[in-house]
Amino acid sequence: MIIDCHGHYTTAPASHTAWRQAQQAAFEAGEQAPAYPSISDDEIRESIEGSQLRLMAERGIDLTIFSPRASAMGHHVGDEAVSARWTEVNNDLIARVVELYPQHFTGVCQLPQSPGVPIENSVGELRRCVEELGFIGCNLNPDPSGGDWTAAPLTDRSWYPLYEAMVELDVPAMVHVSAVTNRNFHATGSHYLNADTTAFMQFLQADLFQDFPGLRFVIPHGGGAVPYHWGRFRGLADMLDRPAPQESLMRNVFFDTCVYHQPGIDLLFRVIEVDNVLFGSEMVGAVRGIDPTTGHHFDDTRRYVDALGLDAVDLRKVYELNARRVYPRLDAALERAGHRAGAAGTERQEEVPA
Amino acid sequence: MIIDCHGHYTTAPASHTAWRQAQQAAFEAGEQAPAYPSISDDEIRESIEGSQLRLMAERGIDLTIFSPRASAMGHHVGDEAVSARWTEVNNDLIARVVELYPQHFTGVCQLPQSPGVPIENSVGELRRCVEELGFIGCNLNPDPSGGDWTAAPLTDRSWYPLYEAMVELDVPAMVHVSAVTNRNFHATGSHYLNADTTAFMQFLQADLFQDFPGLRFVIPHGGGAVPYHWGRFRGLADMLDRPAPQESLMRNVFFDTCVYHQPGIDLLFRVIEVDNVLFGSEMVGAVRGIDPTTGHHFDDTRRYVDALGLDAVDLRKVYELNARRVYPRLDAALERAGHRAGAAGTERQEEVPA
Repeated sequence: MIIDCHGHYTTAPASHTAWRQAQQAAFEAGEQAPAYPSISDDEIRESIEGSQLRLMAERGIDLTIFSPRASAMGHHVGDEAVSARWTEVNNDLIARVVELYPQHFTGVCQLPQSPGVPIENSVGELRRCVEELGFIGCNLNPDPSGGDWTAAPLTDRSWYPLYEAMVELDVPAMVHVSAVTNRNFHATGSHYLNADTTAFMQFLQADLFQDFPGLRFVIPHGGGAVPYHWGRFRGLADMLDRPAPQESLMRNVFFDTCVYHQPGIDLLFRVIEVDNVLFGSEMVGAVRGIDPTTGHHFDDTRRYVDALGLDAVDLRKVYELNARRVYPRLDAALERAGHRAGAAGTERQEEVPA
Repeated sequence: MIIDCHGHYTTAPASHTAWRQAQQAAFEAGEQAPAYPSISDDEIRESIEGSQLRLMAERGIDLTIFSPRASAMGHHVGDEAVSARWTEVNNDLIARVVELYPQHFTGVCQLPQSPGVPIENSVGELRRCVEELGFIGCNLNPDPSGGDWTAAPLTDRSWYPLYEAMVELDVPAMVHVSAVTNRNFHATGSHYLNADTTAFMQFLQADLFQDFPGLRFVIPHGGGAVPYHWGRFRGLADMLDRPAPQESLMRNVFFDTCVYHQPGIDLLFRVIEVDNVLFGSEMVGAVRGIDPTTGHHFDDTRRYVDALGLDAVDLRKVYELNARRVYPRLDAALERAGHRAGAAGTERQEEVPA
């Protein structure tokens, strides 16, 4: 089967998005947020079937590890209560998608982070999502300030309460920032990639994975700049008297395949061990158009991975087994949904560009 | 001949570096900075011949476009007067290196930027360095705040006074940040690469090069994350209704070869037109060690470029002609130094790892 480890619910029903705007306006006005709207199953189906699910079918993707829209997490908006409530309704909405399409989606949660608020306060929502909603991981924002980077590095002990819960629950985190308020940065064009690179360098500088051998992170967008500059990171580790990243980090850190052209994917697999790469597309997401040089969607990353010429064993690692290993709760979720490993069809349908 | 477009004077004499510390301490104490020390030609020779010049000879690099140590620019330190004085002594020291070794070095200046200070105030030092010291370009810091990114994007009109002078003088800028004060970032491990990616995305979002068709930037460190994510940037341009970067940016934006492993260099040349790549090594610099997988220095980027198998025409572009085109004042500087195109030897000496 083919598992996409990186999908965001970017097509959530309009009433959900409108409520967020009302929630923000109410906060700014010092008023109570309005009641969250009633959203019907049909509205959810409509928001999924014409976009995410259609594209998955066209591309032969069986299952997407699905989380709330990253750019809309907006941890810097409002205060802790605003973030907590927005997080809760986002995660609940993901749970409903999973409930409607258990064969095709499994949930990853947003955390109710807020600048200056201890990460302890996010542990309850992580537990609720994993233990009650059946989610298999979380998205962790290393910069809940939205571009000011006021939090401590991810290797600081202040993050440890979350890591303890992650290890206990056996769930990984995808390191994923959200919208950025500083006009120097474009969210998907620089802030996301910069955060990926920043997180990796933080991991390289510290002993986090000695303290938490069972902690796992997915660094999305192909690892930011890291694989392209793999020699630089190996050299910096050497200069800083740190162990080589291949030995010290790559049991705990994984990259996805959200790199939107063949040369980038080729580099990723040339440099990074196949055990450390999870198939992902970030669709329906950052880049929606069709590449005029190929005639296919930029984010149809399966085409690039298929073109690598990996043998069947490695291909299955990238498409399925690495995801099952990094997200161990996936097995139980798939069993609940009636999936068996390798049972689902992985044929591409003829693609009809949107 | 082989021109390295990206060398910093990281081995400047100890008394120069000590004066900077004294200057900072004086500023913090509200006192006058001490007099800048007298540095002999021998001290400069000693600081150059055993490191930069030796490595250049070993690697067959004829000429380095040489600028003050980037991480030490520290535009955020002190105030405008502190930055101006530090900039002046740095540039004067580069001029002395060039004077001692005109065959091997040509100068690029640091600018006296300071957070919140208009860029107009840097134009005088640019003119002095170009017109009086014979420099051929400048390093422009897009974030003089040292990591807070409080300046406007490089495409904002507030930067235009500098661009007008750059076009008039026909000199390019290398986009290069300095030290970073936020502990989330490592200067050479994430801040530099992030700034490269950030600058490129800023250029993609605006019409700067319509306003200044003759303006030229070198984005160092192989363009940050950009070549690895070239499909993402092409797709984002399409989504944002911007022209394709190949058409709108690549007459004005150039990348160097400071990518410290063969797969990265291979990707760079696979994705970016050869006319847009300038040979550079950033030595003696960010990464000083020897790659255990090759037995050679990580930053010996000539090895990677030589291994590409480019034909003689393209190789000469990367090693020489692109630099002459991007830095048009290089020709006059080389003529003054008695260089003729292709005249200098480019044989590698047997390398003796330091």
